[in-house]
Amino acid sequence: MKRYAWVIGLKDNKIDEYKRLHAEVWPDVLHMIKQCHIQNYSIYMRRLDDGKTYLFSYLEYVGEDFDGDMAHMAADATTQKWWDVCKPCQAPLADRPEDAWWVDMEEVFHLD
Amino acid sequence: MKRYAWVIGLKDNKIDEYKRLHAEVWPDVLHMIKQCHIQNYSIYMRRLDDGKTYLFSYLEYVGEDFDGDMAHMAADATTQKWWDVCKPCQAPLADRPEDAWWVDMEEVFHLD
Repeated sequence: MKRYAWVIGLKDNKIDEYKRLHAEVWPDVLHMIKQCHIQNYSIYMRRLDDGKTYLFSYLEYVGEDFDGDMAHMAADATTQKWWDVCKPCQAPLADRPEDAWWVDMEEVFHLD
Repeated sequence: MKRYAWVIGLKDNKIDEYKRLHAEVWPDVLHMIKQCHIQNYSIYMRRLDDGKTYLFSYLEYVGEDFDGDMAHMAADATTQKWWDVCKPCQAPLADRPEDAWWVDMEEVFHLD
């Protein structure tokens, strides 16, 4: 199992919409996430000292080919529609890699 | 099981020290964490758009009395010494509750 933790900004005027969307994520989107071997997936939110709100996600990947599973998810039409409604809520970090939306955080500690 | 996710700032000039400390956390501190029914505990780090670095922790509590376990941990002499070396590295959020160091993040999504 491999853990991933990511961060992204959340636009101030989209906080309610993002929470509403994630209180009732489309079943086919959830099904695709599970099919892509992701489990124990949480997203947290907090306003930080700069006055901006950020989203932090934590997930556990239990498959054998993360890039392949992510490509499979990205090719799914329903997932694409879901991202089309979620992405306008998000404010990706300025220093993200060109091909990234959420960015990786660095693990500094883990205890099983 | 109950999940907790917390955030705190990390001082720029303490990043290396914090990473070094957490690469070799004292065994008695780890033992106390487990004794207090905490498992699957990770800490992540990322510099955000405001130029400041933050720490994000995720943990799973499997006991029956979180406040009691946290009080037990806080009363442990070795844990207190550990906190004495870690706390000067951290920069707690300005809007934290008076009795808090790390602050809670709000869960907006979870999938088992």
